[in-house]
Amino acid sequence: MSIKTIERTPSAYGYPLLIKNLLDNPVRQFPNQEIVYGDFKRQSYQETRERIGRLASGLAGLGVRPGDTVAVMDWDSHRYLECFFAVPMLGAVLHTVNIRLSPEQILYTINHAEDDVILVNTEFLPILEIIRDRIEPVKKLVLLDDTGQPPATRLDISTEYEDLLAAGDPAYKFPDFSEDARATTFYTTGTTGLPKGVYFSHRQLVLHTFGVMAALMGTGQGRFNRDDVYLPITPMFHVHAWGIPYVATVLGVKQVYPGRYIPEHLLHLIERENVTFSHCVPTILQMLLSSPQVDETDLSRWKVIIGGAALPQALAKQARDRGVDIFAAYGMSETCPILTFAQLKPHMLDWDEDRQLEIRCKTGLPVPMVELRVVDDAMNDLPHDGKTPGEVVVRAPWLTQGYLKDPRHSEALWRGGYLHTGDIGVIDAEGYLKITDRLKDVIKTGGEWISSLELEDLILKHPAVAEAAVVGLPDLKWGERPLALVVLRPEREVDEAAIRAWLQNFADQGVISKWGIPDRVLFIEAIPKTSVGKLNKKAMREQYATLIQAG
Amino acid sequence: MSIKTIERTPSAYGYPLLIKNLLDNPVRQFPNQEIVYGDFKRQSYQETRERIGRLASGLAGLGVRPGDTVAVMDWDSHRYLECFFAVPMLGAVLHTVNIRLSPEQILYTINHAEDDVILVNTEFLPILEIIRDRIEPVKKLVLLDDTGQPPATRLDISTEYEDLLAAGDPAYKFPDFSEDARATTFYTTGTTGLPKGVYFSHRQLVLHTFGVMAALMGTGQGRFNRDDVYLPITPMFHVHAWGIPYVATVLGVKQVYPGRYIPEHLLHLIERENVTFSHCVPTILQMLLSSPQVDETDLSRWKVIIGGAALPQALAKQARDRGVDIFAAYGMSETCPILTFAQLKPHMLDWDEDRQLEIRCKTGLPVPMVELRVVDDAMNDLPHDGKTPGEVVVRAPWLTQGYLKDPRHSEALWRGGYLHTGDIGVIDAEGYLKITDRLKDVIKTGGEWISSLELEDLILKHPAVAEAAVVGLPDLKWGERPLALVVLRPEREVDEAAIRAWLQNFADQGVISKWGIPDRVLFIEAIPKTSVGKLNKKAMREQYATLIQAG
Repeated sequence: MSIKTIERTPSAYGYPLLIKNLLDNPVRQFPNQEIVYGDFKRQSYQETRERIGRLASGLAGLGVRPGDTVAVMDWDSHRYLECFFAVPMLGAVLHTVNIRLSPEQILYTINHAEDDVILVNTEFLPILEIIRDRIEPVKKLVLLDDTGQPPATRLDISTEYEDLLAAGDPAYKFPDFSEDARATTFYTTGTTGLPKGVYFSHRQLVLHTFGVMAALMGTGQGRFNRDDVYLPITPMFHVHAWGIPYVATVLGVKQVYPGRYIPEHLLHLIERENVTFSHCVPTILQMLLSSPQVDETDLSRWKVIIGGAALPQALAKQARDRGVDIFAAYGMSETCPILTFAQLKPHMLDWDEDRQLEIRCKTGLPVPMVELRVVDDAMNDLPHDGKTPGEVVVRAPWLTQGYLKDPRHSEALWRGGYLHTGDIGVIDAEGYLKITDRLKDVIKTGGEWISSLELEDLILKHPAVAEAAVVGLPDLKWGERPLALVVLRPEREVDEAAIRAWLQNFADQGVISKWGIPDRVLFIEAIPKTSVGKLNKKAMREQYATLIQAG
Repeated sequence: MSIKTIERTPSAYGYPLLIKNLLDNPVRQFPNQEIVYGDFKRQSYQETRERIGRLASGLAGLGVRPGDTVAVMDWDSHRYLECFFAVPMLGAVLHTVNIRLSPEQILYTINHAEDDVILVNTEFLPILEIIRDRIEPVKKLVLLDDTGQPPATRLDISTEYEDLLAAGDPAYKFPDFSEDARATTFYTTGTTGLPKGVYFSHRQLVLHTFGVMAALMGTGQGRFNRDDVYLPITPMFHVHAWGIPYVATVLGVKQVYPGRYIPEHLLHLIERENVTFSHCVPTILQMLLSSPQVDETDLSRWKVIIGGAALPQALAKQARDRGVDIFAAYGMSETCPILTFAQLKPHMLDWDEDRQLEIRCKTGLPVPMVELRVVDDAMNDLPHDGKTPGEVVVRAPWLTQGYLKDPRHSEALWRGGYLHTGDIGVIDAEGYLKITDRLKDVIKTGGEWISSLELEDLILKHPAVAEAAVVGLPDLKWGERPLALVVLRPEREVDEAAIRAWLQNFADQGVISKWGIPDRVLFIEAIPKTSVGKLNKKAMREQYATLIQAG
């Protein structure tokens, strides 16, 4: 006898997991709930639903067919939210263009994704003007305008967004189709190479929405409620603003889209709209908390998820001191993105604030349906002791199947049935993950893994140090050995032995292994960085390997 | 160009929605969380996970293969929860036997479901003894025992549950297979005919779990939290206790399984275990609130979902007066079962209690992914005005595809792409559904639909009336006309004209249509009822159609 399966027939069982099925209940149940776009626009869920119909019918009128790709270049707006729904609901693919890339990179992604129509904010016309002649084939352009002025451009604009909607059909009927239909695509950039495209289906976005919702039921801490007011502060072009706009819509909460990220503007919106739920990267939070206007903003009802980089405890404490319910999250472009949230467990709610803060700054607990493992090179599980590092590998219903038209990188991403994150982490006895390094930046010496991030943190604590980077260099005996690169503060002097003694002190306390103390410390003028300001370790390894060998 | 779909390959995208994927994260994150079985057993999530492995390996040892069916006859217990996971996770089908059926009906369901193994509580051995010789083919029996005594039975028992587990493998590896694999089956009983089997796949149970979780994020009212303590009081054999044990497990909350439903025992468990979240039918709640022990039980932290029948406002008020957070739900065996919850919207939290109570007693708002419509005979949507009745039809990812091996009834269930509930309801402007009648009991007269339930309620308010039933009888001119059947209280006398005048009064106030007043009121000794105590309207229609024609 073999497994009895149920055939999914179109009439009965065959309810596909489509993005359109997220929309109808909240619109019916909260028709007057608000969606706000900065200082420009205030509209109801009902109106939004009608505009989604108008947008889809307008795009169909421009020639967009199922399987076509529609690109968007906009700030975070009500329009972007409308595109999140209308474009996939047509059966087309939404390409959310990273407007922070260089014009050359944007050109590459537009051609690589084979965009058919581009919706572009007036402010980004200069980018398109630079690359227009090299876009193949020529696309139709739809203007997204907040200025009310006709654009001064030589580009051939097909129509303006609001004109497109005005002529569209608010009752446009969206078809059923396979839940495996591709819904979105966007591009990730590493320190090297061309941008790589990831892509997600309707099924994946729907399941991500429900997995994240289940995780955000929370413990009285970090909970997303129906009476929250939502303001995303991670860009909508970047992994659909972590997919949380879909969650907010299913919950039926008020949503505020900010446009550009100017700290005073964001704080003003938080105050004016009574915002209670957001997510952002540590840098943005730091900017908000450093703004003079923060003292005039009540943040005591604000819950904020921090992702994109590790949440430093000092920053978390600063936020907690203003009453913010802060906690970390983890994921990446390839994972749709949410994998973990660092919420407190119920029994931790009684803990003192410092102990809680340590949990809130961990990488977190896997959300429902995410199978997350920390493994060695042979894919064996490592002990959950909070100290044995290994690579983080995952399975979940919402991981990109690969990189678009890039089988080589796709094969490296998926091995042994798991997506390899390239991150190194430890899991503790409570099940919390903590990312300690990137796999490519970890230093493997004498069978031990040394975290370059941890070493950098410790060196940075030295009062004379302004910047630090640690990289592994090839070593015949040990495999690799760490090299520390240090930029000193102005008018401070300190020698190599002092830095090594500083680290020896931490090794004596058991904070790091004594094998982790770099053999060499080089004092340099500036740390090599990438175009987006990350440490360029690849460049450092290449540059200093020679130097050390020569030396 | 056509839709671009993503191929689900086993290595990458092909993460199937399997019940086993609900289990691992809560066990890892809350290994010491408790599962309690009445006064008999107290075990951790970790132990439960190991017992699930042992049970599966034990069943495999008894010969259970993927596609086989395993029946359970037990009270609500930790064992039943283990079966909820272990049996489907093996790729087998779990048949939850309705132990309240007659032995003949149980025999029919065991043979119809083609059960291969039966897990049976000592208390139900007498039932099996009656039907044993007619079960085809002969099954293996596993004893579920709380007595500690060897059973006095002539039945051939293969093994006892705890012995099976003791010999099993706690680390049993569960395979991956299609998410469309059938996971569970059980039987519904109507007023006539044989029990009908419904069935659900892994995919359906997983999606039901996440849809229900999303709905239970709540508004500060009716919310299921990670620090709740869960006690189901609807039987686990009946639609998997509404699927909430799966929700509770994903949340990682403490779970209490009560065994038999004795009011004092239930209240004792609520008090002793600090239970905060339950669900039950109105009759059970009435029993609890009427128990002398209720005054010794603090119910002020208790949230309870009421389903299975309409929630009367008087009962809801009685519960509210004790501090209970009460709200109605709606569903049926065919719908896995949850379709709606009658939670308050955030803006209703300020309303006075009576107005809130009216909402809490409605049938509710559709949960995410449930498309619910109220339609006329031609499947047109009816206005959401709170007064135009029509049949409730639904689509959702978790509806039975039909009745097991019963194409005739399956065809009647699914028409026009929607499951037809057979219920009549109205939707109000806030989107709340209210069920007003069963389609088969509604009276269609002169193009209007008259609710027999509403007429019965009004007649029952007359001080002389003990029981009442209203049925529609064929009428050449109007299609149907209502007939009222009334049982008077002892030593009360009242005539037909008085009852009609009583109803005329409500018609004058606009509560009912004047067409709804029955032409005839018959005073009888007893209302015909079914074996489970419901009004037997089919029998009444047959019996009194002749009488009226004759008269």
